[in-house]
Amino acid sequence: MNPYKNRQARFRQAMRDAGIDGYIVTQNVDLYYLTGTMQTGLGVFPAEGEPVLYVRRSLARACAESEVRVEPMPSYRELGGALASAFPGWFEGGRKVRLATEFDVLPVQQFRRLEAALPGAEWLDGSRLMRELRMIKSAEELAPMREAARIVDVTLEKAIARLQEGMTELELMAYIEHSIRLHGHMGLMRMRAYNQEIVTGMVGAGEAAARPTYFDGPAGGQGLGPACPQSASRRPIGRGEPILLDLGCCIDGYVIDQTRTAVIGDLPDDLRYAYDVSERILREVEERLVPGTVCEDLYKLSLQLAKGAGLREHFMGYGPDQVKFLGHGIGLEIDEWPVLAMGFDIPLQAGMVIAVEPKFTFPGRGVVGVEDTYLITPDGFERLTVSRRELIRIGD
Amino acid sequence: MNPYKNRQARFRQAMRDAGIDGYIVTQNVDLYYLTGTMQTGLGVFPAEGEPVLYVRRSLARACAESEVRVEPMPSYRELGGALASAFPGWFEGGRKVRLATEFDVLPVQQFRRLEAALPGAEWLDGSRLMRELRMIKSAEELAPMREAARIVDVTLEKAIARLQEGMTELELMAYIEHSIRLHGHMGLMRMRAYNQEIVTGMVGAGEAAARPTYFDGPAGGQGLGPACPQSASRRPIGRGEPILLDLGCCIDGYVIDQTRTAVIGDLPDDLRYAYDVSERILREVEERLVPGTVCEDLYKLSLQLAKGAGLREHFMGYGPDQVKFLGHGIGLEIDEWPVLAMGFDIPLQAGMVIAVEPKFTFPGRGVVGVEDTYLITPDGFERLTVSRRELIRIGD
Repeated sequence: MNPYKNRQARFRQAMRDAGIDGYIVTQNVDLYYLTGTMQTGLGVFPAEGEPVLYVRRSLARACAESEVRVEPMPSYRELGGALASAFPGWFEGGRKVRLATEFDVLPVQQFRRLEAALPGAEWLDGSRLMRELRMIKSAEELAPMREAARIVDVTLEKAIARLQEGMTELELMAYIEHSIRLHGHMGLMRMRAYNQEIVTGMVGAGEAAARPTYFDGPAGGQGLGPACPQSASRRPIGRGEPILLDLGCCIDGYVIDQTRTAVIGDLPDDLRYAYDVSERILREVEERLVPGTVCEDLYKLSLQLAKGAGLREHFMGYGPDQVKFLGHGIGLEIDEWPVLAMGFDIPLQAGMVIAVEPKFTFPGRGVVGVEDTYLITPDGFERLTVSRRELIRIGD
Repeated sequence: MNPYKNRQARFRQAMRDAGIDGYIVTQNVDLYYLTGTMQTGLGVFPAEGEPVLYVRRSLARACAESEVRVEPMPSYRELGGALASAFPGWFEGGRKVRLATEFDVLPVQQFRRLEAALPGAEWLDGSRLMRELRMIKSAEELAPMREAARIVDVTLEKAIARLQEGMTELELMAYIEHSIRLHGHMGLMRMRAYNQEIVTGMVGAGEAAARPTYFDGPAGGQGLGPACPQSASRRPIGRGEPILLDLGCCIDGYVIDQTRTAVIGDLPDDLRYAYDVSERILREVEERLVPGTVCEDLYKLSLQLAKGAGLREHFMGYGPDQVKFLGHGIGLEIDEWPVLAMGFDIPLQAGMVIAVEPKFTFPGRGVVGVEDTYLITPDGFERLTVSRRELIRIGD
């Protein structure tokens, strides 16, 4: 079955289950997921009937790519009339049509324009519905993620071969970015949460990696200054300090996420111990990566293991700068659902793709940890990231 | 005077002029502009009195960097109480406090949380006020833009020296990105508009450059596929076709924007002519880059010149995919104010920084044009971009 038709059918079913008459899709990534094209416009998806993609620009490109019928975007003044004509059932009778849209990303200004254009609508927050829809990946979505994982692996090995004492984080990061870009990385990675943004992962060594950040991850990196307070810094990489290589790559819109820890020479014993604990947590999690396992239980398990190892204070950031999750869904965006965190009491399902990233932060000294991205299969998991899993030691 | 204190004073004055009691700043870039730090939290700026930056994460980094008093972020349930205590005047008497926030970027979900937390507030769209505030640059903002312009120039010359027939757009783009990154480019460039995003500019040659896109610029580029429908493609660069080198670089948060056109061998006469017209339009605009010139008049002038040259249909994109502006403000974001477009009837003022980019699109053949970034000075302009302005011809 055409994957877009399949997604649209699941979308319609989810709308019916939620008692929604239709969904006005506004965000570029959601539009791409449902139509196969990323243009400026609105995707109007009824719970019953065929969707329409209204496009302002580029209409020509939309027509060439879209899996949904394309129409020119009317002005907001004409939008109500256009929808009343395209979806007559919505505006009949006395009741208001129940429409959803992405309250988690749509700015107030554009939402108010929609409200004014469609006064006969009752508006509902469709964020959860959209994120749950996109949570389950199809085979077509896995192919680019596998390719991204392969590119990250090839690049990691080349970067390790090049890594030497005194090289700056930025130099190594630039080398990595150049390699993945030549392999087809699209030059950016998408993140859904407001105000969050991501460079192409990070190279972070020693104290620079351990600097607290606003970035919603266990280690964000020092960055190049207050206006870019994450990812690589200009600090030279030293001997005997952990080097965190948290690398992403985006192929045909799909992102992968993988972390390895390297060291030139040897790690101090306590950091080596913490690294081993991160691997142990990942193995323990893997034993439970099977449909039915409740997401938040994996987070609880990791907390118990970190506490049992005497490393609770260092787990997933340090002290007040800790994040409260162990892993995250990933796909077109790096912060998809499910999250392995308290409150996510849903079970794992086949088709979910999640990055699991146990890490330990030691202020002034560095971050150690490991991260792999997994597909949940009907009877367990498949690891999508392919790099050797070990503390990478670089000799003299 | 401390530039942050100066910005805050201008901000307070703008609020008083607009009859606003306070502004809740939510966006990362606006927060950085006003506080000097980019953390997760809310900046509360009263029209009278001292602002407070409420920080969820990272409090430590905020305390080290902020030019505004920092407090831990309360929960949304406690926010009302915290603000009533910090800003007692706001919640006294019978009237509602008039608060503004950034309706152009703040998602509905977060806005509703603010509304629920502060039921005693009347909310106003503060987008225009914020964009006008940030429109006038201080000396501190120009230094990183000058440095970014220097890096783009050095990189452009190196890229030209390397450019040869058969190299793909992506290869040249990757080389350029690697060069600017090593010089301190922060790895991404920020764009304010919903759903808009930008890779590090573009290398676009021949028909690939002329492909229409959703990107809000005269030429977006073919890109690597439907999920990344802009910037460089994998198409090899050929002889005798225009090569558009539209390059950005972001230093300490500040972006520069410059375009040059190159060709291996010679351009066909009609494209060479169109290139010359783009230079002529830029020179004509430069003669009017002085405080007092009305922004939309520059756009009208460019339309007249393009029409007079018989190139109206090709100007700023082709046919229905044309954009309706000649240039844009630039600073921390690449789509700042003012815009050289109809409806922007404000005069140029000293301190504005604008990129002016006359370009001509020939479907199936390519895009020619030129772009420079300018500071408006009290008696004219200073060109911030420094590259030689000519059709760059690459011999055999």
